[in-house]
Amino acid sequence: MMKPPKRAAMAAQAIRELIAAEFELGDQLPSEAELARRLAVSRVTVREALGQLWLEGLISRRWGVGTFVRQRPGPAAGPFTSVFVDLHDIGSLPHRIAATGRTPSLPHARAEQVPATPEAAAALGVPEGERIWRVERCLAIDGTPAIVLHDHVPLKVNGVPFDPAPVTGLGGDFPTLVHATGTRIVRDEARLEAALAGEGVAKLLGVDAGTPVLTTRQTSHADTGTVVLSTRCYYRQEVFSILLVRTVPY
Amino acid sequence: MMKPPKRAAMAAQAIRELIAAEFELGDQLPSEAELARRLAVSRVTVREALGQLWLEGLISRRWGVGTFVRQRPGPAAGPFTSVFVDLHDIGSLPHRIAATGRTPSLPHARAEQVPATPEAAAALGVPEGERIWRVERCLAIDGTPAIVLHDHVPLKVNGVPFDPAPVTGLGGDFPTLVHATGTRIVRDEARLEAALAGEGVAKLLGVDAGTPVLTTRQTSHADTGTVVLSTRCYYRQEVFSILLVRTVPY
Repeated sequence: MMKPPKRAAMAAQAIRELIAAEFELGDQLPSEAELARRLAVSRVTVREALGQLWLEGLISRRWGVGTFVRQRPGPAAGPFTSVFVDLHDIGSLPHRIAATGRTPSLPHARAEQVPATPEAAAALGVPEGERIWRVERCLAIDGTPAIVLHDHVPLKVNGVPFDPAPVTGLGGDFPTLVHATGTRIVRDEARLEAALAGEGVAKLLGVDAGTPVLTTRQTSHADTGTVVLSTRCYYRQEVFSILLVRTVPY
Repeated sequence: MMKPPKRAAMAAQAIRELIAAEFELGDQLPSEAELARRLAVSRVTVREALGQLWLEGLISRRWGVGTFVRQRPGPAAGPFTSVFVDLHDIGSLPHRIAATGRTPSLPHARAEQVPATPEAAAALGVPEGERIWRVERCLAIDGTPAIVLHDHVPLKVNGVPFDPAPVTGLGGDFPTLVHATGTRIVRDEARLEAALAGEGVAKLLGVDAGTPVLTTRQTSHADTGTVVLSTRCYYRQEVFSILLVRTVPY
């Protein structure tokens, strides 16, 4: 669950280098099986790496035909818009952003104990007004504010005091911290909505108050059957967007 | 690809009846394997059915523990907010809505030939201004407008004239019509955004112009490597919302 997507990132980098060394614009790349053999990784890893390169616009894929060089690797340009998230993997967003070669940073991060709002109380299944942790973060990509996250966690998880301090830096992530309490996050649910950016969120994202923003209301469910984390995310859509991909097996 | 989710809908209905007949509030349901045996369906079908019942609020699931009756089956109440979509299955939204026991309808549907706008031309890979099909539909759930869809399709798909007339009724769906041209949709991409409802969309959805709405920009890729369908959807979020679920394997 907690692995940063290192294998796929390394495979993506290896394929970038392969393209730079051996392939021209429009060339067809070797098959997934052949790439897996050459890179000595699994086909799953190759597929994840190709997904990332496709999102970067480096390759195009003609279904049933193959994968082609659409653009030769060069310095990253243009806004960052996509990070490949395997739906079966619940991990750290900064790790994923770093894995694409972009630099994540946290220009704003604060953890504080607050009384649970009605919404946070309902999500976490605690009494309204009970003290909980609230973590407010702004995640930037290559220096541009991209996502504002409001996380809510009970003061104790699985009876163990929970300290969110590590997530106010890039090194920490909630799944790891929750895991340290002997609990494992096994399910994340994110409800997608449109909203108008309020003053606070707008200021952090660098947009005008009242700008329409994509938001998610997320709950992370532990293997104990309880919700251990409730998160509201706000995305600045010129910088970060969510792409849902559905495929039919070949 | 085109199967309406009949098996899962039938399994969900069978589990509803099972709960009504044999189970009380708070009771634990049999395991997935046991339900699969009793219903004589696959575990995949049971899982999809339980996903639907969970979205309906009928059951709760304690991960690693089991599935419990959260609410006894009764007449559907409250707004419809969720339809379970398996990400590996590209199918018909009205079919899925019907499979949850709700009634889909099309209070508005129109197909017309129009010159391709820059956005539609770019998505479909045709010259700007080339004549294409534009289908505008409003999909209602139990009589309440829920989704406005703007579909764009070339006049010919795979060299075969394309007639969108069937999708202006509930019986037709794009994957089937595209398949009739000898082409198969193998990949759908949906980019999620927040926008303000314009006059036309607002009127169809029954909301005020300027209301923030969730929208998706979708492209459907055929096995020939081309985009055969470009769709913009607008969701009325009090009626229909999108829930992304990520799970970690047990």
